[in-house]
Amino acid sequence: MRDFRHDHTALALNTATLGHNVEGAGAGWSPERVIDACAERGIGGIVFWRRELAGRAAAIGDYARRSGIEVVGLCRTPFLVGPLAERDGTAIADDFRRAIDQAAAVGAPVLTIVTGGVAPGTKGMGESLKIVAERVANALPWAREAGVKLALEPLHPVYGGNRSCLVTTREALDLCDWIDDEALGVAIDIYHVWWDGDLPRQITRAGRRILGFHLCDWLADTADVLLDRGMMGDGVADIRGIRAAVEAAGYRSFCEVEIFSADNWWKRDPADVLDVMVERFRTVC
Amino acid sequence: MRDFRHDHTALALNTATLGHNVEGAGAGWSPERVIDACAERGIGGIVFWRRELAGRAAAIGDYARRSGIEVVGLCRTPFLVGPLAERDGTAIADDFRRAIDQAAAVGAPVLTIVTGGVAPGTKGMGESLKIVAERVANALPWAREAGVKLALEPLHPVYGGNRSCLVTTREALDLCDWIDDEALGVAIDIYHVWWDGDLPRQITRAGRRILGFHLCDWLADTADVLLDRGMMGDGVADIRGIRAAVEAAGYRSFCEVEIFSADNWWKRDPADVLDVMVERFRTVC
Repeated sequence: MRDFRHDHTALALNTATLGHNVEGAGAGWSPERVIDACAERGIGGIVFWRRELAGRAAAIGDYARRSGIEVVGLCRTPFLVGPLAERDGTAIADDFRRAIDQAAAVGAPVLTIVTGGVAPGTKGMGESLKIVAERVANALPWAREAGVKLALEPLHPVYGGNRSCLVTTREALDLCDWIDDEALGVAIDIYHVWWDGDLPRQITRAGRRILGFHLCDWLADTADVLLDRGMMGDGVADIRGIRAAVEAAGYRSFCEVEIFSADNWWKRDPADVLDVMVERFRTVC
Repeated sequence: MRDFRHDHTALALNTATLGHNVEGAGAGWSPERVIDACAERGIGGIVFWRRELAGRAAAIGDYARRSGIEVVGLCRTPFLVGPLAERDGTAIADDFRRAIDQAAAVGAPVLTIVTGGVAPGTKGMGESLKIVAERVANALPWAREAGVKLALEPLHPVYGGNRSCLVTTREALDLCDWIDDEALGVAIDIYHVWWDGDLPRQITRAGRRILGFHLCDWLADTADVLLDRGMMGDGVADIRGIRAAVEAAGYRSFCEVEIFSADNWWKRDPADVLDVMVERFRTVC
């Protein structure tokens, strides 16, 4: 297991930790200012959200790399199914391809897939997962052509209704097996999977298909299941145990801190948030 | 699979559906008035919460049976571990035994176990589940003596931090296997398990160890993860599919409707809630 106590070059900031996934949230720093702040602190990588790139993807990616920061990934595809997805399958496919193009333009090797929830009019996950499989399979040739890998991210089962019909690592790997494409893998986010007793086995099964590893924590008294995620060390997840499993499976890439926190971390000075993030990464992860 | 379209004698009311699990919630009907309302409608069973019995357990149980209503279960043990449990293990054990005694007094064959969340100072579920196993094993002789079975109820993973370190049917059965006592089984509650792709396999594995089956629904846009549960048919759970699996495993007992719903069903006239419950049971379950 890698020792991060004196080396946090494997740390990546997901800009959602500064509220950049939601319009109007956080302090509103520009991508360049965030990159500068990461570089000053020796943070090695960054993950952007599409809304931040706004037609400047290539320039932002270049700025990051010139500053010594790797662009590790891009969040995220449109919802592919469920009540929050667009009704029109063609519109979804078009936006999926635009997301892939943006990932390629910013130089992100991985685009995260968030599936969306249960297809209206159906019950349970089965029908929705079939639609997801089809839409991901259809997007993969475009992704391969663009040199971008796609990471299926199982979300916490609390999002099963509206945001993700994919809620376990096991099912994400089942989808990978079924689609069987080298450009498809999974993202493991501690917030979403920490509770799962089957996780160690599934991480072993995943092996080299782990394309992203996300750090945060589950607060015992979570006040809001979307926007009250915890900083590493403040919750009950076994972060170190999960990281050990992920690394034993062969993962050697960045550990990406992604914390949605409307009433706590997003209200603080981003400089302080980054300082705490570095310190927690070195001490509790 | 049983046909409920013209027969709802297998329907049981869990009085939480009328808010009776929370002090001050609901219309505040007495146990006798609830029993009368169930009897009028041909509802076959009832499940009480301990707070309703208040020293009158035997009398309430007798009233139910004289009215033609079976007392199907009692909710529930104290939290056995986690931040909401009492600090003192002896106090927990004492209250566990009092709960068993109350179940016996009211004539309920099953007492539901809600485990409580992650033990303070620990990370992940592992340590907490060990404590649960020990405390359940210690209570089982008392339960057997009282003629009461104990049903481990896995709760939804959203409660993993504070209310339940037991979040999947698989782990509930692992605990049953480990403790290996005929008086121990599981309760399957659709709200808590509907999202689980591993559920059909685990239900088959459970077989005759299924001691309770709870109906409700998961609303796609759940506003509050504790108190915004859905009436059957209003959500996205595959109720009929899960019931088919439970019955294929050999379950032939009551289907218990348990809906925590502070801002919707608890605000309605209990008579209307019961009428809707019966109608939904016959049409969508």
